[in-house]
Amino acid sequence: MTAPSHLPQFRLEVERRLAELLPLGSERPEKLHEAMRYSALAPGKRLRPQLVLASCVAVGGDWKVALDAACATELVHCFSLIHDDLPAIDDDELRRGVPTCHVVFGEALALLAGDALFALAFDALAGIDAPPQQVVQCVRALSSASGSEGLVGGEVVDVLTEGEPFDRETLEFIHSRKTGSLIAASAEIGAILGGGSGEQITAIRSYGEQIGLAFQVVDDILNETGTAEQLGKAAGSDRERQKATYPALIGLENSRALAEKLRLGALAALEEARLNGDLLEELAGFTIQRQS
Amino acid sequence: MTAPSHLPQFRLEVERRLAELLPLGSERPEKLHEAMRYSALAPGKRLRPQLVLASCVAVGGDWKVALDAACATELVHCFSLIHDDLPAIDDDELRRGVPTCHVVFGEALALLAGDALFALAFDALAGIDAPPQQVVQCVRALSSASGSEGLVGGEVVDVLTEGEPFDRETLEFIHSRKTGSLIAASAEIGAILGGGSGEQITAIRSYGEQIGLAFQVVDDILNETGTAEQLGKAAGSDRERQKATYPALIGLENSRALAEKLRLGALAALEEARLNGDLLEELAGFTIQRQS
Repeated sequence: MTAPSHLPQFRLEVERRLAELLPLGSERPEKLHEAMRYSALAPGKRLRPQLVLASCVAVGGDWKVALDAACATELVHCFSLIHDDLPAIDDDELRRGVPTCHVVFGEALALLAGDALFALAFDALAGIDAPPQQVVQCVRALSSASGSEGLVGGEVVDVLTEGEPFDRETLEFIHSRKTGSLIAASAEIGAILGGGSGEQITAIRSYGEQIGLAFQVVDDILNETGTAEQLGKAAGSDRERQKATYPALIGLENSRALAEKLRLGALAALEEARLNGDLLEELAGFTIQRQS
Repeated sequence: MTAPSHLPQFRLEVERRLAELLPLGSERPEKLHEAMRYSALAPGKRLRPQLVLASCVAVGGDWKVALDAACATELVHCFSLIHDDLPAIDDDELRRGVPTCHVVFGEALALLAGDALFALAFDALAGIDAPPQQVVQCVRALSSASGSEGLVGGEVVDVLTEGEPFDRETLEFIHSRKTGSLIAASAEIGAILGGGSGEQITAIRSYGEQIGLAFQVVDDILNETGTAEQLGKAAGSDRERQKATYPALIGLENSRALAEKLRLGALAALEEARLNGDLLEELAGFTIQRQS
């Protein structure tokens, strides 16, 4: 019999801590704080923070040290969702099963709530009780995963490619940055704060890159095959908008095979570095098998 | 005869280094990088980075150590200008004498270029060659000055107060955050990286808070009295939009007197801590006397 997984506990701890880190809706400016809490505390998978904590454990660290860093990755994710959903970009009205931030609070508040969540991520990271050298490494990992080389860069190419012909190189550029970079950075940050060796951090980052790409491939598949009710966001929208996706380029079956190949590659990276990767293995499985 | 000021050199060094830190327009995604460079390299006063460097010198530090941190404060400033100018917020078409980012690159690119500049600020800060403990302190100062407790929080109350009656408390809330927080943090960051003592950092922060508020009071005055050509942005727009400003609340003459009082308070804070504050004094003078 295997021991019960720590992942459900991690998820609860992250949600509890997020609620503490977010400014109170009763404090000025109330509307901003309400908008931040609305988006960041909406029900989510919390994959990125779970990756931080699981990676920390995988290198023999104490997950509690990495809790605020885990929250930081979720805050960056939420910031990017709010901005991507804005009318100027994807103009989406449903996210995580609830109306998007700008639908509820208006465009100005949503834009600024996203900015404030992004700032809060670095605030949370800078406040953690870990060796400063490690904290600086984490700040660097998070900022480069978020910016023009990371998720913002991927989002830009995603937007510019809509309705245009695209090749596999462009598709990988988009997916590895838009989704992959923050997932890879989350795994890396956990390994840094767990006190992992250079070799271990590299292995966990490689795991994260492959899981990150797999996650987006599965997202593409679910957008084709799932319902809005299952996904908590618009379904079929990629095809409608002629987005660059794996199913559009190589079909559904090949996309599924690619996701599984990436999962196996991720596990091989862990094995090669002889890491205690049970939780990471579980997260890799979840990434592929999820229905939402 | 007094020695020639270092400030013009600081400004040149900051602009040179900004051009290096910003991603190249020739690299993918080109449009994003072009938009980032367009806004960040448009002619500006570079007050915040000059404050970083002057504060570093004031506590006996080497300004070169603080150069990338200086650039980080300017990048945060540019990010906030791009977002504030967007149609969803102030809908401004002119900034720093040139068309705003969204007018040239479209809303989606402008929004994302702002995000990427914000990320780049933390990347630049995390990369500096200083004791990690100091770097973490700087990250914290920059993130809290930028977020819901700082400029984003001030901007939100500014937007929500447009066309509404307002009191002095609300006005100070807006100005001390929207403009004051990043200016105060810039001074603080320079003092941290210069190796200042706790007392020196506190004094320089107090100087920065007063200069920051003075800067916005003067901005309010110039918006009433200057021309768009002088300012490089719309003039008279505050009154048109019924913005919360000092001239609207206490009149032009009282506003001028307040700015001068804040300048003297800032200098007194430096004097009390016996700081070598020639450059800071010069910047305080510039803050009050500027015509643009």
